[in-house]
Amino acid sequence: MERVTIRPAGPEDIPAIVAMLADDPLGATRESPEDLAPYRRAYDRLRSDPHQFLVVADREGEVVGTLQLTIVPGLSRKGSTRSIIEGVRVHRSERGRGLGARLVEWAVEESRRQDCHLVQLTSDAARPDAHRFYERLGFTGSHVGFKMQLGPA
Amino acid sequence: MERVTIRPAGPEDIPAIVAMLADDPLGATRESPEDLAPYRRAYDRLRSDPHQFLVVADREGEVVGTLQLTIVPGLSRKGSTRSIIEGVRVHRSERGRGLGARLVEWAVEESRRQDCHLVQLTSDAARPDAHRFYERLGFTGSHVGFKMQLGPA
Repeated sequence: MERVTIRPAGPEDIPAIVAMLADDPLGATRESPEDLAPYRRAYDRLRSDPHQFLVVADREGEVVGTLQLTIVPGLSRKGSTRSIIEGVRVHRSERGRGLGARLVEWAVEESRRQDCHLVQLTSDAARPDAHRFYERLGFTGSHVGFKMQLGPA
Repeated sequence: MERVTIRPAGPEDIPAIVAMLADDPLGATRESPEDLAPYRRAYDRLRSDPHQFLVVADREGEVVGTLQLTIVPGLSRKGSTRSIIEGVRVHRSERGRGLGARLVEWAVEESRRQDCHLVQLTSDAARPDAHRFYERLGFTGSHVGFKMQLGPA
């Protein structure tokens, strides 16, 4: 694990990130790795927002993991800033070696640096292994995560 | 309900918003309405972030509800932008009259205007009434919401 660095994602990392998003039972139905144009537009939106941190885990030049961290100021809890983790993915070849934990721990430390008082994320109810993973890292599954898809208006 | 307008929160609305955040079984233990300084600092952070929408429901000059909407770009789901709803509160005097639904419907419509493909939120597992409320509005409680408090470093 010592040769893995966590660094901001560059535009050259987009194909590797999308491949990881798609290589997943839920992601396979939702992603389009054959057409990167929408991902490049989304990357530009991310890079123009100073409260977004898209990072990759880089093992000697190969992208082996990714995660997105969003910093959200707010009034509740005495004006606490919170952070939200999304899109945690680890390359198939690296699973079971602690890289997911290292990515999430990076996000928690970055959240502290950004003066956040709370880190949160949602995990699909169909991923019990992920739930145990987050509990081991110190998260509490205290909430229900609600989602609504918006179709074309 | 026709005399209620939903508008951006101004600094003059902070005391009324904080009073609503505190007037809640969970919020009572987490808020400090006697000291507004941290809320004013948080308000300034919110207003400087173009992806944050803090709104109030205003009934003829009186603040009777509030909600925060955050726009989050991302690579997953073909580069979809999503939105996150936080801090939904309705004044005690207005409960049961549909104002909460109107606030959330505003957030959903604003999310469409911002080209979001997904709206999400988390609700404490201790709020079953809130869960039924979000299900009636078309949300699906498909995820587990994990949180981690960050103490002083």
